[in-house]
Amino acid sequence: MSYDLVIRGGVVGTSEGTFAADVGVRGGRIVGIGTDLATGAAELDAKGRFVLPGGVDSHCHIEQMSAAGIMTADDFESATASAAFGGTTTVISFAAQQRGMDLRTVVKDYHLAARRGAMVDYSFHMIVADPTEEALAALPELIGEGHASIKAFMTYDRIRLEDEQILDLLAIAREHDATVCVHAENHGMIAWMSKRLLQDGKTSPRYQPASHPRESETEAFQRLIAMAEFTGHPVTIFHVSTSEGAAVVREARERGVRVTAETCPHYLLLTEEDVDKPGIEGAKWCCSPPLRSKSDQEALWEALRRRDLQLVSSDHAPYAWDETGKLKNGPNATFKQIANGMPGLEARQMLMFDAMISQGRMSIADFVDLTSTAPARHYGLFPRKGAIMIGADADIVLWNPERSHTLTAATLHDRTGYTPYEGRTVRGYPEIVVRRGEIIVADGDLRATKGSGTFLPRGAGFA
Amino acid sequence: MSYDLVIRGGVVGTSEGTFAADVGVRGGRIVGIGTDLATGAAELDAKGRFVLPGGVDSHCHIEQMSAAGIMTADDFESATASAAFGGTTTVISFAAQQRGMDLRTVVKDYHLAARRGAMVDYSFHMIVADPTEEALAALPELIGEGHASIKAFMTYDRIRLEDEQILDLLAIAREHDATVCVHAENHGMIAWMSKRLLQDGKTSPRYQPASHPRESETEAFQRLIAMAEFTGHPVTIFHVSTSEGAAVVREARERGVRVTAETCPHYLLLTEEDVDKPGIEGAKWCCSPPLRSKSDQEALWEALRRRDLQLVSSDHAPYAWDETGKLKNGPNATFKQIANGMPGLEARQMLMFDAMISQGRMSIADFVDLTSTAPARHYGLFPRKGAIMIGADADIVLWNPERSHTLTAATLHDRTGYTPYEGRTVRGYPEIVVRRGEIIVADGDLRATKGSGTFLPRGAGFA
Amino acid sequence: MSYDLVIRGGVVGTSEGTFAADVGVRGGRIVGIGTDLATGAAELDAKGRFVLPGGVDSHCHIEQMSAAGIMTADDFESATASAAFGGTTTVISFAAQQRGMDLRTVVKDYHLAARRGAMVDYSFHMIVADPTEEALAALPELIGEGHASIKAFMTYDRIRLEDEQILDLLAIAREHDATVCVHAENHGMIAWMSKRLLQDGKTSPRYQPASHPRESETEAFQRLIAMAEFTGHPVTIFHVSTSEGAAVVREARERGVRVTAETCPHYLLLTEEDVDKPGIEGAKWCCSPPLRSKSDQEALWEALRRRDLQLVSSDHAPYAWDETGKLKNGPNATFKQIANGMPGLEARQMLMFDAMISQGRMSIADFVDLTSTAPARHYGLFPRKGAIMIGADADIVLWNPERSHTLTAATLHDRTGYTPYEGRTVRGYPEIVVRRGEIIVADGDLRATKGSGTFLPRGAGFA
Amino acid sequence: MSYDLVIRGGVVGTSEGTFAADVGVRGGRIVGIGTDLATGAAELDAKGRFVLPGGVDSHCHIEQMSAAGIMTADDFESATASAAFGGTTTVISFAAQQRGMDLRTVVKDYHLAARRGAMVDYSFHMIVADPTEEALAALPELIGEGHASIKAFMTYDRIRLEDEQILDLLAIAREHDATVCVHAENHGMIAWMSKRLLQDGKTSPRYQPASHPRESETEAFQRLIAMAEFTGHPVTIFHVSTSEGAAVVREARERGVRVTAETCPHYLLLTEEDVDKPGIEGAKWCCSPPLRSKSDQEALWEALRRRDLQLVSSDHAPYAWDETGKLKNGPNATFKQIANGMPGLEARQMLMFDAMISQGRMSIADFVDLTSTAPARHYGLFPRKGAIMIGADADIVLWNPERSHTLTAATLHDRTGYTPYEGRTVRGYPEIVVRRGEIIVADGDLRATKGSGTFLPRGAGFA
Repeated sequence: MSYDLVIRGGVVGTSEGTFAADVGVRGGRIVGIGTDLATGAAELDAKGRFVLPGGVDSHCHIEQMSAAGIMTADDFESATASAAFGGTTTVISFAAQQRGMDLRTVVKDYHLAARRGAMVDYSFHMIVADPTEEALAALPELIGEGHASIKAFMTYDRIRLEDEQILDLLAIAREHDATVCVHAENHGMIAWMSKRLLQDGKTSPRYQPASHPRESETEAFQRLIAMAEFTGHPVTIFHVSTSEGAAVVREARERGVRVTAETCPHYLLLTEEDVDKPGIEGAKWCCSPPLRSKSDQEALWEALRRRDLQLVSSDHAPYAWDETGKLKNGPNATFKQIANGMPGLEARQMLMFDAMISQGRMSIADFVDLTSTAPARHYGLFPRKGAIMIGADADIVLWNPERSHTLTAATLHDRTGYTPYEGRTVRGYPEIVVRRGEIIVADGDLRATKGSGTFLPRGAGFA
Repeated sequence: MSYDLVIRGGVVGTSEGTFAADVGVRGGRIVGIGTDLATGAAELDAKGRFVLPGGVDSHCHIEQMSAAGIMTADDFESATASAAFGGTTTVISFAAQQRGMDLRTVVKDYHLAARRGAMVDYSFHMIVADPTEEALAALPELIGEGHASIKAFMTYDRIRLEDEQILDLLAIAREHDATVCVHAENHGMIAWMSKRLLQDGKTSPRYQPASHPRESETEAFQRLIAMAEFTGHPVTIFHVSTSEGAAVVREARERGVRVTAETCPHYLLLTEEDVDKPGIEGAKWCCSPPLRSKSDQEALWEALRRRDLQLVSSDHAPYAWDETGKLKNGPNATFKQIANGMPGLEARQMLMFDAMISQGRMSIADFVDLTSTAPARHYGLFPRKGAIMIGADADIVLWNPERSHTLTAATLHDRTGYTPYEGRTVRGYPEIVVRRGEIIVADGDLRATKGSGTFLPRGAGFA
Repeated sequence: MSYDLVIRGGVVGTSEGTFAADVGVRGGRIVGIGTDLATGAAELDAKGRFVLPGGVDSHCHIEQMSAAGIMTADDFESATASAAFGGTTTVISFAAQQRGMDLRTVVKDYHLAARRGAMVDYSFHMIVADPTEEALAALPELIGEGHASIKAFMTYDRIRLEDEQILDLLAIAREHDATVCVHAENHGMIAWMSKRLLQDGKTSPRYQPASHPRESETEAFQRLIAMAEFTGHPVTIFHVSTSEGAAVVREARERGVRVTAETCPHYLLLTEEDVDKPGIEGAKWCCSPPLRSKSDQEALWEALRRRDLQLVSSDHAPYAWDETGKLKNGPNATFKQIANGMPGLEARQMLMFDAMISQGRMSIADFVDLTSTAPARHYGLFPRKGAIMIGADADIVLWNPERSHTLTAATLHDRTGYTPYEGRTVRGYPEIVVRRGEIIVADGDLRATKGSGTFLPRGAGFA
Repeated sequence: MSYDLVIRGGVVGTSEGTFAADVGVRGGRIVGIGTDLATGAAELDAKGRFVLPGGVDSHCHIEQMSAAGIMTADDFESATASAAFGGTTTVISFAAQQRGMDLRTVVKDYHLAARRGAMVDYSFHMIVADPTEEALAALPELIGEGHASIKAFMTYDRIRLEDEQILDLLAIAREHDATVCVHAENHGMIAWMSKRLLQDGKTSPRYQPASHPRESETEAFQRLIAMAEFTGHPVTIFHVSTSEGAAVVREARERGVRVTAETCPHYLLLTEEDVDKPGIEGAKWCCSPPLRSKSDQEALWEALRRRDLQLVSSDHAPYAWDETGKLKNGPNATFKQIANGMPGLEARQMLMFDAMISQGRMSIADFVDLTSTAPARHYGLFPRKGAIMIGADADIVLWNPERSHTLTAATLHDRTGYTPYEGRTVRGYPEIVVRRGEIIVADGDLRATKGSGTFLPRGAGFA
């Protein structure tokens, strides 16, 4: 009956819909939802605000080294600070094995890093890049300790797995109840096309999109789905970028294969034209899969509407705009020498609120579902995370739907040093961010302490 | 802060999921949801109970005469009493025009009947069986008065409409924002097949399923969908009975046609073998479309799981088991002379709770969605009805998931005199039913007064 | 070893391919194909010519009255003369019942007319517009007499059949081994749309295409296919005009339904823009289904390539450009008052040769197949007709692939008085036409005598 | 006018149909087809016989070493003798590169072997197992010399290619107008499954079918088709064995991808139950892809009927039933140590005639098409081979449709020492075989001389 915090007078949004209500918090959890809750020890005035569950970003690279040995600019401190500013209160990043590394040690090290720095709650997908007998043997226990998701790459030298190795992971995941997430592109097509482009002197970043043929996405999706069917275990497909890719996912789901798939804001809002810049400049927009066309954007939006795709994550890959990151190989680097990826952890929710709500593409319920409820469900965090629901963690964001905000590298809080959305103005702003009942961001002010985020052990979610 | 009623200690279910919470009611509405709400003027102990929104039955025939002139046994009093006993707190029945009737008068008369008898809240679909210029001219105002749904028949002599007439209805519905619901079967195929069966001496009720070829369903669905595409206006398809029918709906939805479709418990739980009884006995199970096969059942369950079908209604058609109803044409009546339909308003929620929850087919969230939230949304009643949500009408049912109950004509409360489920035991029982904050059923005791139900004017819902 | 006629030195074309060979004829039949056949009593020099089977036009209206009582300008004499000039040596026209007519008498009368006038061989589809008990009872014998195809209309007042009546025809056709050909358009949609157009003052011929919505074709195809599935009997669909219509045919065939379908030169070569003429002029291009768009043309060509559609017929409907035909209702007639159809019997093969061969769309084998072999097979005339094959009737056309010819009403030989292709120049010309071994056209000279065509009794073909 | 040979009084069959005619031959070619050709220098009485084009077997392993170093029992002499006895007059076998071999030398060596032994005409697919720069550089000239088809393997250690290498082959094939034929199975799935079977002690030949999961076929087909789409060049898929595989081919063709596919008699007539023999015995039926189920057989027949599959070849792989072949690794060899494949060159046409004609599955035209005309067309041999057509090579087989014949190792003429069809009686027998006008088999008597077969240089066919 007594509340630590009451968020009063706002419009609560869930994946079902919206309603006017106060939200009462005690002990870090939501304990009351009602029209005139008793006064809390603290109160937040939510008049004119949407009161939504904190964002769940299920795909972000933090304090991680790329296959080519380039370190992300963000550590857990800066990454989760920027997440918080953007209205995201849960991140799932990676514990990334590289060739020769002991998987248990890898996981332990990432835990250490996160414990030191994280300001929002976190969990890990385990990247298995070297599926030795030891690594495979370690998986069941690691899964049991709450790392119920494994990531595999079908492309990228040094970390990509052969089909047989992916089957091994699926078999273990099936037996021990984990999800396998896959970066699915056909390695051979990319290699073949890249070689030809380089031979033709088409080396600068603007040619990077062309180096990933559309068919490399569809092919790999189909192959992965065939492996899912063969092993009888569901798969999660990361970052769908093309209309055909979305169609492959849909067809598989229609015939009963359990496939879950995500896309990211940059595939919904940017195109290959953004990469088409002179010199090294295009490197800012190099990501993998690459940016595609306008009509792909439309297809992806439609796929989200139909829930052919179920998740929107950032794929935050904060390679600094300097010689430690994007520019490591100098101003004449070929597109093959550029670290793939772009920052997006902070901007994700603002971009999606603007694109979905302010621009009228979808409803508040859809926004909540795609960016918070569905990722939480899929990765075994629901209903602790992802919902304004009695008993859930009080991870709550107060959105001002009328407030506009201009995205610039200067005002964002990650350490990448650039943003692919420089100068873009979005409407809808996460003014106050509450994490487990604690106000961690208010009016542009970060109040969380380093290391206050907690690890979220996860079992299998809704595959 | 003060509540008229608190439902305490139960597990609340919404279409999102379940959580432990109390529900506080004031002024007939839900005003608080929380873990330890203040004491209410009245209290209901919900320990061990699911606290779910009241059922919304969007397809039931009450105090209505069939095309062949047979009156339903239930009037609004008996129908809505039985609805309440079964955990249903909202019904949408029909204002049924027949040839030569003035549509405005028809609607007025049904309002009178409902106002006199209804114990739960109600609304009407308008059956247009004689789309004269006058009838069509009356529609806009009737829609504006809250009757935002029109029903048309593609089969049945005397009430069926030609394609051109259905196009007229769709055009009006489009302009004035209403839904068109259709009984879609191919009249010619049924007539052709019936004639042959009767000629062959196959006249008894057991031959009724054969008289409605499976293709009569698919064909009519396709035709209706073509009309929806042509006019650019959504359609609602009533009572899908076959796997092919469900597939047609799915394909249309997949290519972007806005089709919504329902099925009914009898298509999910009974088969044509139930009709295969000696003599007139089979008449109890004659309905239109008819009962189908085991594999259709499985396809329909799958279609519900995928939400290819979105609604589960009863199609309550309470023709008495006596000479006023099913037996009107004597013990040797042919299947063409039997009133089609079966009672189901009271049993619907118990059958579905048992089949979905107790038998493990789906979750509480699915049950709530298919039988309450989705019908409320689709027909413009959400969020007033169909949800445990702040601000919604306090239509709440306390389900005891462990309590078993045997369905018999003797213990059901409609006036049909038989039940197609005689002797079937279901697990899961709606012990207490609250309508707008008032306990109307408790422990087998009906406390609602005649006429206490209110009319629910509806605009267009989520087509 | 001795030949009546040897066609020497040409390139023979069959539906398999082409080869250089002489063709020897005796007794009206092909008896020798070889590289240096012995000298014949007569010889034709075919150097530089393609030696192809005579065209088989399986859909043409000759000496027939429309549903609205307008007579075709062509009788059998003029129609078959024009056929011969165009390289067509077999026609299947109609024995057209109207309401109240005795079907046997109808068939007898058409036989009389044809026997009197025909210069090429002929057969009849029986149009059943009044399926009385007597008419249905007459069908088995008429089928047995060689009229193994029945035509039904799903639109047009006075002649269209209800679904139940079409089912009756299919059942009889199934039992007695005949084909049912259907003009498949949704009557209600056309009526609904026409009414609105006329109400809006859009009455002139240019609005005729809009009065037949695209969905009227797809819907009717789907309905007919459902009837085919229900009765288990194949259907033939006349004049496919839209891409969606072709897609419906393809999907049905892919799932194993036996559907055969034709299109016509005007759907492949003209568009609705041709109808878009001021005043009554557009009436020349009014046909039913109407002319469609450029993208439909492409879809139909593709459908022919894939053999989703198997037949190309003329749908020759020679309503004179005077008050006995197109202009019967004066210069201000509405599009509903115009006789639908256009002449095409003579032009068909020249248009197709030009479009397929001279313009490079397809091969000689395809041309022979679509316009001669396939229609002959489908309607039970193969291998007597439709092939350069030992034993076949010597119906042979010598095509000069280099000769250009301009189509004008003045130089065509039917009696319509206009051609929708006025002024169009085609390359590829049927210089010599041989029918059962007899040269009936040579160098623009008609040598056949009136009544020399013979009736071709047909059993069921390749459904 | 004078003939070297006249085949008189038979029924000629083409892919179009059949007709009664004599066939006149001069200079090794067909020069006359007619009902009463002049007397030839030689005459064959074909009364009661079908006169069909000689079989074209486009997939057979002759005088070739497997990837595991096992030699086929047949050299060109024995293989082509057995082909002739079976009514096959053209074979396309392989010029098989292994790792480290020079491709030009490989091709030259196979030419030498063939020239020495072949009794029927022959051509080669080039197997590229080591696509070094030198090998790729040699391809254009080799293609230009008449080897317009390249074979690649997606599975088998030592010879399988990576996706990138297949793309290289497709690019070269596209530029130089050749066909790429592929053994398409997913290597990883087979390896993964094999390992598990062996670990479980399931080592004997009866487990071989299980070691090739059905998904390994579908997956590889889809991947290959994606490569075809990416490069814009057609592909040929060898030996389709599953219903899903056939469906993948169909779907690709339907959306316009140019894929051609074959199946083989053993997939149509044998099943995995045949492999299920005790001990090493099952090795006789080990082939790759493996034998499948009864329902796959039905699907493949249906796929042939629809021409989703277009070719029927033998995949003749004559590994002797002794220590040089199947038994090389002793009686306890695991299924991984057995040479995959079975003999079938001689039996193919007899099996297909029996299954298609005598058992009534298809027509003579279909038989001719699938086993002779279509392979000839597809691989650039038509109309020289594959047709009874003026100008074609006089490769003609006289089939006695009534004569039964029992297949046994003793009476077949290859050197494998066993037949998988031992004891099977077929109806329909190729009594006389004519190759380029010369009688090479008559009444069980081989009259061809060693080395009398000629090389058939081929350009691209009908892709």
